[in-house]
Amino acid sequence: MIIDSHAHIVMPPESFRFMAELVGGRANPNTLPKIPDASVRKVAEELVKSMDNVGTDIQFISPRPYLQMHSVKPGRVTELWTTHCNDLIARFVEMFPDRFRGVAGLPQYMDEPLELRVIPELQRCVTQLGFVGCLINPDPTEGLGDPPGLGDAFWHPLYKAMTELDVPGLIHSAGSCSARESYTLKFINEESIAVVSLLGAKTFDTFPDLKIVVAHGGGAIPYQMGRFRSWNVRKGEKETFDEQLRKLYFDTCNYSKEAIELLLKVAGTDNVLFGTEKPGTGSSRDPISGRDYDDMKPVIESIEWLTDKQRTDIFECNCRRVYPRAFRRDEDCR
Amino acid sequence: MIIDSHAHIVMPPESFRFMAELVGGRANPNTLPKIPDASVRKVAEELVKSMDNVGTDIQFISPRPYLQMHSVKPGRVTELWTTHCNDLIARFVEMFPDRFRGVAGLPQYMDEPLELRVIPELQRCVTQLGFVGCLINPDPTEGLGDPPGLGDAFWHPLYKAMTELDVPGLIHSAGSCSARESYTLKFINEESIAVVSLLGAKTFDTFPDLKIVVAHGGGAIPYQMGRFRSWNVRKGEKETFDEQLRKLYFDTCNYSKEAIELLLKVAGTDNVLFGTEKPGTGSSRDPISGRDYDDMKPVIESIEWLTDKQRTDIFECNCRRVYPRAFRRDEDCR
Amino acid sequence: MIIDSHAHIVMPPESFRFMAELVGGRANPNTLPKIPDASVRKVAEELVKSMDNVGTDIQFISPRPYLQMHSVKPGRVTELWTTHCNDLIARFVEMFPDRFRGVAGLPQYMDEPLELRVIPELQRCVTQLGFVGCLINPDPTEGLGDPPGLGDAFWHPLYKAMTELDVPGLIHSAGSCSARESYTLKFINEESIAVVSLLGAKTFDTFPDLKIVVAHGGGAIPYQMGRFRSWNVRKGEKETFDEQLRKLYFDTCNYSKEAIELLLKVAGTDNVLFGTEKPGTGSSRDPISGRDYDDMKPVIESIEWLTDKQRTDIFECNCRRVYPRAFRRDEDCR
Amino acid sequence: MIIDSHAHIVMPPESFRFMAELVGGRANPNTLPKIPDASVRKVAEELVKSMDNVGTDIQFISPRPYLQMHSVKPGRVTELWTTHCNDLIARFVEMFPDRFRGVAGLPQYMDEPLELRVIPELQRCVTQLGFVGCLINPDPTEGLGDPPGLGDAFWHPLYKAMTELDVPGLIHSAGSCSARESYTLKFINEESIAVVSLLGAKTFDTFPDLKIVVAHGGGAIPYQMGRFRSWNVRKGEKETFDEQLRKLYFDTCNYSKEAIELLLKVAGTDNVLFGTEKPGTGSSRDPISGRDYDDMKPVIESIEWLTDKQRTDIFECNCRRVYPRAFRRDEDCR
Amino acid sequence: MIIDSHAHIVMPPESFRFMAELVGGRANPNTLPKIPDASVRKVAEELVKSMDNVGTDIQFISPRPYLQMHSVKPGRVTELWTTHCNDLIARFVEMFPDRFRGVAGLPQYMDEPLELRVIPELQRCVTQLGFVGCLINPDPTEGLGDPPGLGDAFWHPLYKAMTELDVPGLIHSAGSCSARESYTLKFINEESIAVVSLLGAKTFDTFPDLKIVVAHGGGAIPYQMGRFRSWNVRKGEKETFDEQLRKLYFDTCNYSKEAIELLLKVAGTDNVLFGTEKPGTGSSRDPISGRDYDDMKPVIESIEWLTDKQRTDIFECNCRRVYPRAFRRDEDCR
Amino acid sequence: MIIDSHAHIVMPPESFRFMAELVGGRANPNTLPKIPDASVRKVAEELVKSMDNVGTDIQFISPRPYLQMHSVKPGRVTELWTTHCNDLIARFVEMFPDRFRGVAGLPQYMDEPLELRVIPELQRCVTQLGFVGCLINPDPTEGLGDPPGLGDAFWHPLYKAMTELDVPGLIHSAGSCSARESYTLKFINEESIAVVSLLGAKTFDTFPDLKIVVAHGGGAIPYQMGRFRSWNVRKGEKETFDEQLRKLYFDTCNYSKEAIELLLKVAGTDNVLFGTEKPGTGSSRDPISGRDYDDMKPVIESIEWLTDKQRTDIFECNCRRVYPRAFRRDEDCR
Repeated sequence: MIIDSHAHIVMPPESFRFMAELVGGRANPNTLPKIPDASVRKVAEELVKSMDNVGTDIQFISPRPYLQMHSVKPGRVTELWTTHCNDLIARFVEMFPDRFRGVAGLPQYMDEPLELRVIPELQRCVTQLGFVGCLINPDPTEGLGDPPGLGDAFWHPLYKAMTELDVPGLIHSAGSCSARESYTLKFINEESIAVVSLLGAKTFDTFPDLKIVVAHGGGAIPYQMGRFRSWNVRKGEKETFDEQLRKLYFDTCNYSKEAIELLLKVAGTDNVLFGTEKPGTGSSRDPISGRDYDDMKPVIESIEWLTDKQRTDIFECNCRRVYPRAFRRDEDCR
Repeated sequence: MIIDSHAHIVMPPESFRFMAELVGGRANPNTLPKIPDASVRKVAEELVKSMDNVGTDIQFISPRPYLQMHSVKPGRVTELWTTHCNDLIARFVEMFPDRFRGVAGLPQYMDEPLELRVIPELQRCVTQLGFVGCLINPDPTEGLGDPPGLGDAFWHPLYKAMTELDVPGLIHSAGSCSARESYTLKFINEESIAVVSLLGAKTFDTFPDLKIVVAHGGGAIPYQMGRFRSWNVRKGEKETFDEQLRKLYFDTCNYSKEAIELLLKVAGTDNVLFGTEKPGTGSSRDPISGRDYDDMKPVIESIEWLTDKQRTDIFECNCRRVYPRAFRRDEDCR
Repeated sequence: MIIDSHAHIVMPPESFRFMAELVGGRANPNTLPKIPDASVRKVAEELVKSMDNVGTDIQFISPRPYLQMHSVKPGRVTELWTTHCNDLIARFVEMFPDRFRGVAGLPQYMDEPLELRVIPELQRCVTQLGFVGCLINPDPTEGLGDPPGLGDAFWHPLYKAMTELDVPGLIHSAGSCSARESYTLKFINEESIAVVSLLGAKTFDTFPDLKIVVAHGGGAIPYQMGRFRSWNVRKGEKETFDEQLRKLYFDTCNYSKEAIELLLKVAGTDNVLFGTEKPGTGSSRDPISGRDYDDMKPVIESIEWLTDKQRTDIFECNCRRVYPRAFRRDEDCR
Repeated sequence: MIIDSHAHIVMPPESFRFMAELVGGRANPNTLPKIPDASVRKVAEELVKSMDNVGTDIQFISPRPYLQMHSVKPGRVTELWTTHCNDLIARFVEMFPDRFRGVAGLPQYMDEPLELRVIPELQRCVTQLGFVGCLINPDPTEGLGDPPGLGDAFWHPLYKAMTELDVPGLIHSAGSCSARESYTLKFINEESIAVVSLLGAKTFDTFPDLKIVVAHGGGAIPYQMGRFRSWNVRKGEKETFDEQLRKLYFDTCNYSKEAIELLLKVAGTDNVLFGTEKPGTGSSRDPISGRDYDDMKPVIESIEWLTDKQRTDIFECNCRRVYPRAFRRDEDCR
Repeated sequence: MIIDSHAHIVMPPESFRFMAELVGGRANPNTLPKIPDASVRKVAEELVKSMDNVGTDIQFISPRPYLQMHSVKPGRVTELWTTHCNDLIARFVEMFPDRFRGVAGLPQYMDEPLELRVIPELQRCVTQLGFVGCLINPDPTEGLGDPPGLGDAFWHPLYKAMTELDVPGLIHSAGSCSARESYTLKFINEESIAVVSLLGAKTFDTFPDLKIVVAHGGGAIPYQMGRFRSWNVRKGEKETFDEQLRKLYFDTCNYSKEAIELLLKVAGTDNVLFGTEKPGTGSSRDPISGRDYDDMKPVIESIEWLTDKQRTDIFECNCRRVYPRAFRRDEDCR
Repeated sequence: MIIDSHAHIVMPPESFRFMAELVGGRANPNTLPKIPDASVRKVAEELVKSMDNVGTDIQFISPRPYLQMHSVKPGRVTELWTTHCNDLIARFVEMFPDRFRGVAGLPQYMDEPLELRVIPELQRCVTQLGFVGCLINPDPTEGLGDPPGLGDAFWHPLYKAMTELDVPGLIHSAGSCSARESYTLKFINEESIAVVSLLGAKTFDTFPDLKIVVAHGGGAIPYQMGRFRSWNVRKGEKETFDEQLRKLYFDTCNYSKEAIELLLKVAGTDNVLFGTEKPGTGSSRDPISGRDYDDMKPVIESIEWLTDKQRTDIFECNCRRVYPRAFRRDEDCR
């Protein structure tokens, strides 16, 4: 089974119109859109078709990250939007229960305590909508401020709720308000910051059951390992940086074979989940391979030094282990 | 002929998606949408049909005001969006040259000189796209700052360009970022501020050929005339406030008959243009009349004390006089 | 009996000097002024004389709104000033108990909880000084910030205190720091914002005994009813906007007969209180009537379609019902 | 002749009322007060009488510093207020030409170039009203910001104008918005900052004809000379700090005899002008001497080690030399 | 015995390097420096030698004030730095127990409650390191903000801790971020502000056992006594300003004999402690005396009107009384 | 010849003390340190020795990046500090002309035009001190603000000066004020931002002779190539992202062999310069290799697939081509 652990919802036109109204009116006044089943089914079917085209059995879908509007004032804007997106995802899953799992977006409006909107929405999504994980945006200011690092105690209430609900978090930043840092590049930089912050703060000592997946192959970290290996020695850490890194999971949403090989060597084949973000940034034709950049299955398959067991881990079993709510236990992986 | 001088474009779904991308990515990176004619024609035809339903011959269409994103950082966002909207309007006009005239939105990003983006876009719209007027948003900060009043010299370069191009401006604010002031209410308040600022600063002494239309019946001013009449006496103004007010034009986009009667008495039937903003805020069914609130033609027709000449002025001739670029001269009104 | 429910104190010269000291020294250091009875009596007698000139029996007097300095940093400035003004009002009432009632100003310094200064001063004024109502400024930032709307839970402690003390609040903004919005215009805009915020938030469902009077004829709302009627339909509200509006009271402090007639039709003659703000903005000679603009008694009397009962309600009985602490119950109105 | 070089205007009640209106309405709208001669004469006569009581022949009067509102937004507020105060001073001088000289206040609104309002008002006061000097506030932000030091090139246009007009400047800060620093203490601190900034920047090398008087005995500097003497040595300055200090003038407005003796020793009897700020902070009865603190003439007279020539310098001749526009040349001092 | 109550640590080169790292990296990441005994002993011996040169028996040493980095963001920077400095001081005291006493620096990062870092560090220094007093910086923003005055209740938790631990506080500001106010001048101004704030707020009525020493001879206050004497009369204070001033202690760290004489007269010989800040600002050669400015012992000795008892008080006994933890009780002073 | 193109100065203790003074006093007052030759020689010799230990012939030395204080207010701080550092570097070069070349730090204080301090210092260093290149910090706010991207026209004056002087720039950020992003990680993220900004803005079309070296192996970009390859296709760029990337140079200062191999494949062996930043972050012992992480020569030598020519390019010739001012032309590389 091919599980694509990193994908985002495709939205019907009514959603974009609602988003526009939220931006113009800042939730005052507003009426919630009622999107007919036909509209939802149309985009869901498109998504299923795109999965079929590349041989994906199941996608874990979350809100489109760069459209999360975490920094658009006031907080009620992202609350309404996040609820809308999560509800759409739930309808996808209900329509195609064999093809989708829901991963929740969180209404992370900057400068508010997590208990106000974030944790209630996570609880709603998991307990009422049957979601299996959540996104975590390390910078809810979207480049406008200086948020606490993910290792900061500010985030502990979220980690507590996640471990109680037994759901992992996918590190994935949202939009970018900085003219010099596109959202697609900010994804990468925020992942590097997240990794260093979580490992530096020893967050997994405090929350040993916390499970974190870092998207896009971990930002810059696997490529810049030497730098952090040396710092660990200088700081006199008991664990090497390589040992610390194994507490995290990563996905393969990095569209170059050499990079994925580097990732697998550094992070280990037990810690890497198949993920493509398809359709998304990588959905354009690579003139060399003749396939879309985000058609990653052949890339993984072409890595010769992987064993079959390792490939199965990457494509399926690592994901099952990390997302225990996603499948029944009585299956092949453990 | 019934000319609806105040209407806004209806947008195809692709536009909302583009807007969403601009908000998430702040124009970095972005690709401009190419919207097929079929999509544009579909919404244009809907708009024509809604005009036919209420007997409107021609609509003057401008960008949807509350979606103008004048305050969304950086300025390139609203520049791209405004260009997109104005180009769409031009396509409507091209498709239905007998039914539409274009009124330009301006990329009024806060804190930038008007010469940077605003005046070039006005010039492009008038000289290249054949537009006949423009919107003016008195608060480009959309409630986040304290902009100069419309009577301030900051705005003179725009007034100079408008008079040189011989196009009027429709005072109409954009979105609202304040949780306590919805955009629809901000429209009203900004119109009151605009009237008082322009008249207080004697802007029409400096720009005698400038033509300004105040939307929605002039905000609160016609209802609060007494207050300003008294101030004029206290300040020792040569002109009464009523005399000053006659330098401005207003539209009928105020969905109550008593209010429109008050407006016509205060502003005079020579200074009021028919306008409905249809479809828009008023597009819901009035349980008393059984018609939509923005179906304003029967309302004007039911004001018994108006002469036929006055009705024709309101429905057609005042608009022709204010917008000289909109029609050929050789017609009934002068 | 003619009750002018909306009037402000006239201050002796010593008060202005004290205000100047507060502005220059920001309450550090300062000595409280001791104003001799003769100074107070002189201005009180002037005020009584101006009432006699227009046939007013009783005025409800509050601090001069635009001089409340709610935004002058630090909060102790407005606390000292408000106390001073309220104490002056108490001396007026004590000197002329048949001609005045006290309406408290509140030290609404921006960004402070209401429990710190505002509610204690309200309690002091009602229980110790015998005041019968209070002013409420919807924007204590005086245009410098973005305060919570009056429907926001931020204001609930004040509403609770008001209902426990059984005193109504007169919505009346204070000064204006914005160069484009004079205080006299800001009064109007803030009233519109207040009405929409209170009705939109269903504040009267939470506080059914709360009584709110909106000054100056309700800002722009009665004139712009159509806009909000339509929104209520679009939002699917159970009550029409007209029904909601009847939960509020308004005063006649709007110096044009047509406007007052519109107000009485929209709000109903049971909900409108006589009020003039005399002496104030309207204290200049209307060249048409030959009377001051704020000499409103003849205006109300000249509205032919009002019944005697309705006129008495407007001049006297509505006020008695709204301000139960102002008079003994055993009188003609009920 | 006893010349009190440091005194401030006493204002009629109408001025305070005007100031209050400026604070509430921020100059929008406003009408300039027309104060009758009788009101002005009344306060001018009081001031003359207070001079007679202590034997002062002539006072140099400037606006009351802590009421200058340099930080009250927008700049037009202080412009209107400063003009008002300077005009009042001119009327005092016109009424009592033998008893007063005018020293101009400057509309130093923060963050504006000096050419916009400050220098034009100085020129108006000197050339049209016959003033002989000006006040300089080192902190136009009144504690809200971080202005350039008086040695900074920002101030050079003012120094250029002063030397061209041949008028000295009296260093005297204005109000204080800081809760921890009263305006009366801020006077002292700002004078210390001004002295160190001017001497450190070698301003008198650039403007050798510039004349600066530091009020209140020079803040803390004469008392803290050792600190700055040592710094000069450490910095390798050619001149000692004592030599540099002699480029400045000081006044005696420091109500303790020991302090004045210290000042005279440090600054030299050629550089100290008689000044009392009477009536002002010192206008209360000293229980020890039985005279008001600001009755300084007996204090100077009681310093036994002064020669008659030195006393005359302090009381009269130093002032004549510093303020060349104040008197005709053909007199005893040179 | 000559006790120099006001001196600061001399730091080894390793400390400056650590400070540089903290500024560049803002405590992320960082490794604490381990400074060898030899480095510490080297600078400690230099300091002892400089004491021997001028006849000082004991110095009370605290961190170098202008290097305290109280405003360098985030708070962890100054916490690490303060701990480092206090630990260095403890090593000095341990190496030369007869020559030094420790006075704690406090990690006063702006905008944090004192309970977070300041009070724990004070307790650590007194109870674990044997320190006898602490520095208090009245402006932890170092000129970037507007902190509460020392008389404000914000500071009461610190005063409570100080009195419980029986340690006095030395008022001494830190660095200065304002280009117009050097740190050495800010010391003076902050001391004036501190004195006025503490006395004005009647802090010693609330904390009768609190002991406060004002450095550098009390800023400007002894020189500007008249101003505050008069204010006290105007405010109707029961105590004269002179009486209030006697609740404070001062030190002689003011490098001019006339100033010290003035201080002793105003503050009284019981309230002045010998202090030199040597080596520091005064460590340069006075060309007149031929001694360093901070060689203050001969200056005190040369004041002829002091009795021997008074000189002993200044040099030794006042300090012993103010710092009860510094010496055993069974000695000559009481 | 082994040229280490990326190294930083080692500073004598006096420099750290000067830096501390600058931070505390913000350049007011300050005296420039005069560091004796012996101190400078001592640290220079240490550096030479560390070069000898790993077989480096020549180092290109620049200021220590994270200590540049670009964000420490006011701009004069970093100006004094940068001058100090560059002067030190010149002394190193003068002492060991065969072992060092100077690369200038620039006083990039945030929010100032480059013409004020940056370009004059670059000119001074190249024309007077003989420097051969410069550092460029893409974020002079050090994390406190939102600077223009390196592709923005803001930076063009610098590029113009660089090409006129024929010196390349090494992209290297400075300190970090963000608690969640250590300076060492910020280096990486800023390099990614710089690459995307320069290539996206087509800066090399405008400045074809501009030469830019990206430190630390190019941040995340070589590892995340797929993402940007796909974007280029989506944007319809004429050049592939790989082609664009070849306009930049990179160094090997990335302490892992796998990463360097990836870099060489992506960027090409013609575009990669040997660089180690030794001594620095990598100066700790790798427990696996037994060598320091920054001992990179053996790593390059161990890459088997490199030809001798390629190794020579990396170690020497690429650097000679990029830095034409560093050596005489008549040598082996071209």
